[in-house]
Amino acid sequence: MPIPDLNTIQLAAERIRPYIHKTPVLSSTGINEITGGNIFFKCENMQKAGAFKSRGACNAVFSLTEDQLKKGVGTHSSGNHAQALARAASLRNTDAFIVMPETSPKVKVAAVKAYGGKITFCKPTLQAREETLYTIISNTGALEIHPYNDYRIIAGQATAAMEMLEVMGKADIIMAPVGGGGLLSGTALSTKYLSPETIVIAAEPEMADDAYRSFHEGRLIPSESPATIADGLLTSLGSLTYPIITEYVDDIVTVSEEGIIRAMRLIWERMKIVIEPSAAVPLAAILEKKVDVEGKTVGIILSGGNVDLDSLPWL
Amino acid sequence: MPIPDLNTIQLAAERIRPYIHKTPVLSSTGINEITGGNIFFKCENMQKAGAFKSRGACNAVFSLTEDQLKKGVGTHSSGNHAQALARAASLRNTDAFIVMPETSPKVKVAAVKAYGGKITFCKPTLQAREETLYTIISNTGALEIHPYNDYRIIAGQATAAMEMLEVMGKADIIMAPVGGGGLLSGTALSTKYLSPETIVIAAEPEMADDAYRSFHEGRLIPSESPATIADGLLTSLGSLTYPIITEYVDDIVTVSEEGIIRAMRLIWERMKIVIEPSAAVPLAAILEKKVDVEGKTVGIILSGGNVDLDSLPWL
Repeated sequence: MPIPDLNTIQLAAERIRPYIHKTPVLSSTGINEITGGNIFFKCENMQKAGAFKSRGACNAVFSLTEDQLKKGVGTHSSGNHAQALARAASLRNTDAFIVMPETSPKVKVAAVKAYGGKITFCKPTLQAREETLYTIISNTGALEIHPYNDYRIIAGQATAAMEMLEVMGKADIIMAPVGGGGLLSGTALSTKYLSPETIVIAAEPEMADDAYRSFHEGRLIPSESPATIADGLLTSLGSLTYPIITEYVDDIVTVSEEGIIRAMRLIWERMKIVIEPSAAVPLAAILEKKVDVEGKTVGIILSGGNVDLDSLPWL
Repeated sequence: MPIPDLNTIQLAAERIRPYIHKTPVLSSTGINEITGGNIFFKCENMQKAGAFKSRGACNAVFSLTEDQLKKGVGTHSSGNHAQALARAASLRNTDAFIVMPETSPKVKVAAVKAYGGKITFCKPTLQAREETLYTIISNTGALEIHPYNDYRIIAGQATAAMEMLEVMGKADIIMAPVGGGGLLSGTALSTKYLSPETIVIAAEPEMADDAYRSFHEGRLIPSESPATIADGLLTSLGSLTYPIITEYVDDIVTVSEEGIIRAMRLIWERMKIVIEPSAAVPLAAILEKKVDVEGKTVGIILSGGNVDLDSLPWL
């Protein structure tokens, strides 16, 4: 299967349209004054299941035939992909087997259960997660849907930037956070297909900078004990996302933990919307002057809004 | 001056259009499932200065001539009207004299200052607020712009329901919170002019139930030591808002403090938007079964989003 082309992304958009929100694109006079840019925010925090992950999960699950889906789908995830996959599977009346670390926040476990996901807990290591999933898949015959290293997922995530560009018309810069690279590779593909002169910049926490190092050193370097408040960005780039990012992304910058918290709070205060720390990373890069937006039209994908309201990072 | 008619409200909408946001109308599958209704939320939390108050303040200030504005405008307010008036005055390049109780939260004082308001602090009693404002007005010649007991303010606030009805098309019930009654009277006028068969229901905290008692006892009863987390709803109905509410509102119900917090959190969690406690009061009434929305199309005005992120009510 080749890298998703424009037609593949447009087909993904058609396929998932009935099952996702066309999320709003908002802006804030106050944030524009602070940054000097003309910034548009694509509110994937308001997406179904609270994150852009519903796009990829729906595209993957709705690409499968009834027969392929008979034994269900599976993944290991402590985060937004778990919820999104559980929801997509329930829309197709099939099982979602979700392996979650036993340390997962209760609120995330409850959300996966609410969408009908069948949860198996495991020790909080990558090895335990992969082994547990392997066992489940062997026993059930379920299909694995990887959170990002899958072209169907990438094509689904690409639809967010496509919708944003439709609203913006013209953009000097498009920004997204980067974890495993599913959102970033999709965003870069859509942007370069639809608006080749637009610069694509990713932002990543300093404390989980595998994409930054991989991009700048020119080889795939996995994450080593990442520790950031941006819990959606702990994963490493994959074998499918890394090459797309190398070819289609113009730059990757990193931000401090304090910068993420400050940007997150600024968006809550000025825009009156709830975003999770990962979603604040691109604005943090602007506030920390890692990206110059003076006089520029900028689109930022706010990746998600799933945050524990009982423990906010500034408290 | 007579009660604002439809033409007056439409003129207010024209007048304020360049200075306010046409705020989004959002809905939530999750909240619809919980309540059994088909609920639309008018997001005045995303309004300029964070609340519907910008509508009334802009309508009042932009109704005045250069000459009338020469000596500035004034009000006493610890809340959203103060910010909205300071902003509206600065748009007309005139002074806003704002009397605030010395106990006002720092965040609200800072917001008024950011819009260029000239603050005078006073003791936190209604008498001190009124006397301080009277002195300032006597000394400066500024015009008082009352937060709600003013037809220009009421006509401005009425534009929120008008916009919501445009988006909804048809509504069985329209709901708003009630404090001084500016938003509620405007909402009731717009609704009954544009959609006479729609029921208008107000919701009020039990702990500040002067409007509830006034409405049901048929006489204007002032608030007595109200004490609710919904800090936008502490004021009493006015001589202009009470008669409109008596004539145009179908019912007023009350809700518990726990209900307000629960509804507020539900909106944050499910809709990923930041609202203040006052804005949660109508949904609280639905969750507490004070209003039956089963199978009904309901519009709720989310009045504002100015909340201190350092002290959330559920923490």
